[in-house]
Amino acid sequence: MASNQNRKITLLINDIGQLVTMQGPVPRRGPEMSEIGLIENGAIAISGEEIIAVGKADELAGKVDPAENCVVISAGGKVVTPGLIDPHTHPVFARTREKEFEMRLAGKSYMEIARAGGGIRSSVRHLRDTDEKELYERSKKTIRTMMSYGVTSIEAKSGYGLSLEAELKSLRVIKKLNDQEPMDLFATFLGAHEFPDEYRDKPEEYIELIINEMIPAVAKQNLAEFCDIFCEDEVFTVEQSRRILSAAKQAGLKIKIHADEIKSTGGAELAVELKAVSADHLVKISSTGIEMMAKSNTVAVLLPGTSFALGLDQSAPARELISKGAVVALSTDCNPGSSMTESLPMIISLAAINLKMTAAESLSAVTVNAACAVDRGDRLGRIERGMKADMVIWDMDDYRELPYHYGVNLVETVIKNGKVVSGG
Amino acid sequence: MASNQNRKITLLINDIGQLVTMQGPVPRRGPEMSEIGLIENGAIAISGEEIIAVGKADELAGKVDPAENCVVISAGGKVVTPGLIDPHTHPVFARTREKEFEMRLAGKSYMEIARAGGGIRSSVRHLRDTDEKELYERSKKTIRTMMSYGVTSIEAKSGYGLSLEAELKSLRVIKKLNDQEPMDLFATFLGAHEFPDEYRDKPEEYIELIINEMIPAVAKQNLAEFCDIFCEDEVFTVEQSRRILSAAKQAGLKIKIHADEIKSTGGAELAVELKAVSADHLVKISSTGIEMMAKSNTVAVLLPGTSFALGLDQSAPARELISKGAVVALSTDCNPGSSMTESLPMIISLAAINLKMTAAESLSAVTVNAACAVDRGDRLGRIERGMKADMVIWDMDDYRELPYHYGVNLVETVIKNGKVVSGG
Repeated sequence: MASNQNRKITLLINDIGQLVTMQGPVPRRGPEMSEIGLIENGAIAISGEEIIAVGKADELAGKVDPAENCVVISAGGKVVTPGLIDPHTHPVFARTREKEFEMRLAGKSYMEIARAGGGIRSSVRHLRDTDEKELYERSKKTIRTMMSYGVTSIEAKSGYGLSLEAELKSLRVIKKLNDQEPMDLFATFLGAHEFPDEYRDKPEEYIELIINEMIPAVAKQNLAEFCDIFCEDEVFTVEQSRRILSAAKQAGLKIKIHADEIKSTGGAELAVELKAVSADHLVKISSTGIEMMAKSNTVAVLLPGTSFALGLDQSAPARELISKGAVVALSTDCNPGSSMTESLPMIISLAAINLKMTAAESLSAVTVNAACAVDRGDRLGRIERGMKADMVIWDMDDYRELPYHYGVNLVETVIKNGKVVSGG
Repeated sequence: MASNQNRKITLLINDIGQLVTMQGPVPRRGPEMSEIGLIENGAIAISGEEIIAVGKADELAGKVDPAENCVVISAGGKVVTPGLIDPHTHPVFARTREKEFEMRLAGKSYMEIARAGGGIRSSVRHLRDTDEKELYERSKKTIRTMMSYGVTSIEAKSGYGLSLEAELKSLRVIKKLNDQEPMDLFATFLGAHEFPDEYRDKPEEYIELIINEMIPAVAKQNLAEFCDIFCEDEVFTVEQSRRILSAAKQAGLKIKIHADEIKSTGGAELAVELKAVSADHLVKISSTGIEMMAKSNTVAVLLPGTSFALGLDQSAPARELISKGAVVALSTDCNPGSSMTESLPMIISLAAINLKMTAAESLSAVTVNAACAVDRGDRLGRIERGMKADMVIWDMDDYRELPYHYGVNLVETVIKNGKVVSGG
């Protein structure tokens, strides 16, 4: 336990039945993913936006110095975890696409709908027609819902603009949300999400536009930290992806890849080659890809909600990735096409059922490892002295209830930057 | 549209973008399940606990006579449906069973856990040790969560007592919840849920206890409307089920059967033979069973959450049941063992993805047909003059968002017995 003589406690959380600190290795691989740093009857002391002491409630009591206006919250013997981190989201869109969902039920594939002008391209048409203020309000609702489900930080992608102007508009919405809402948003430029209608017949020109105009503008305006690409059969080839991502790296952006989602194209291998921060999806990752991921620091961000909502039989090989030693994270993939959910706890249930991940492994995957997937392993994802004071009080007695009790919201209170933002 | 000159309107719901009335056949079979009685720009007038007029907002406006204290709610252009009905729930239990969930992930089957003294028998031990007041508080929390997800009526089973005293205790909890909470609960006696530990070696004696003591006591005290049984390999045989259910019918109880869940044992056929109100689960229903269900009024209550949470590959043959003309309803099977969820909307998502049911079919299955599964087709499940004023305002523009936008709560306001009980 650590305490601090100089700083006054502004928030004290007491009577925590199970305090899931996630203290331990960063990132977590293999059996380390089962380590959740559990403290029974715990307490947490916070000063301002930072955690300054964590430990057994009875030991902590005498050692901290509450400020006059210190807020004291009893967790009522329940579970506290770090605030969850959702490392792969597309929250900036203009409209939901429920009609396509019903078309898929009737037998159309995701790619068939895309070829017919639906899919990402339909979201592009709507986003271009929506003004920035309306887009902001729509996106704000999405991230507030995420937070109500225990998420305190997200990675947020553009990618429904696919023109210089509409991509910058999307990234400005993300920046403004980060500035105005308690949620931390880490922005990703995803101009290479699809070829827009006007470039269907001249893909090379669109790639030039991304490299020569979009990436420089995004970097210059400091609107994104990451650059991502949909590397997939019928979208961007591995070679096109390498060119675009290399340009992004040169411009100072970190790299992510939508890899091996629908077909095995070598996306994971490319991610490791380019030292990407993460390779995401990985439903069809090759054996070579798994071996390479296991030896790298590139985080494998798995999205079981997408396989679920697309009605696919296959999911990413989570058990093999974990047993081989890859750094595994989980995410909603929240987007209006293939995974319309804001709930990361729902994804934890799906990870249990479809990926055979335990509650402890999934907790590692949405805290410590998800923090690494947004390059914030040093600051987020653990309840530990010096870390950002983001945490969730859950209405449950045992953390294993999280995957088991599915489809409902078990959040009692969300604390972000040392302040209660929801519930309580 | 109907109006009523004599009764004052106490609640008026206006500006309904999509009013899903569910007006039409009761019950609904085959293509009728796609009929949802949609009115665009609708309004509903309620007097006391009853709906007295439904129609286009502009036509209704001049025809109703608001009381002085009439509450007017704008649905803001959103979707309104009847309150959902969950026709198969086990809400009276003492403890969650998250550890068994993790055992199943590790490869143990539901039946292996049951044989080792887990499963229903572990819930029985905990329920017997829990006093009635505590059990009431625990169960109240469950049904309040259900209501927050848009459910206004449920069927509620005993079945974790398995002694005369503990079964009556469970049924008294259900009765008290029905009396004290806005939720309508229709009680089902499920003493034949499993053989309790003390009768493992003398099953015949337990059957005698059910027939000679439990059923007469339940009937005499008027504590249940239905009698259900877990007709399954290793639990109650078809012959034992026939004896118990026949005794229940003689005592004036209506019949339900947990049928063909894990193995095909002829449960559906027995349900039709006994004119059961419903046959539930049906994952392994035989072709003969399907044909018989299609020609009967016995409702096929499908529970896709249970297949999902047990990680099974197989689901009930919903499409075949619908195309052959069976009356299909959906339910959570909310219970601490095989399906820990209170969310019927979650089940609608699972019905879409795993049973290939459209949004319209699922709406029929949780309103009109679910009402028939609790023998209330005349009073619940439709927004129509003379029906009970139970309805939900959803935060969505199109009813098809219900299955598509998964794992989160889209309820804006729940209205039960003509009063706002949640949200709004």
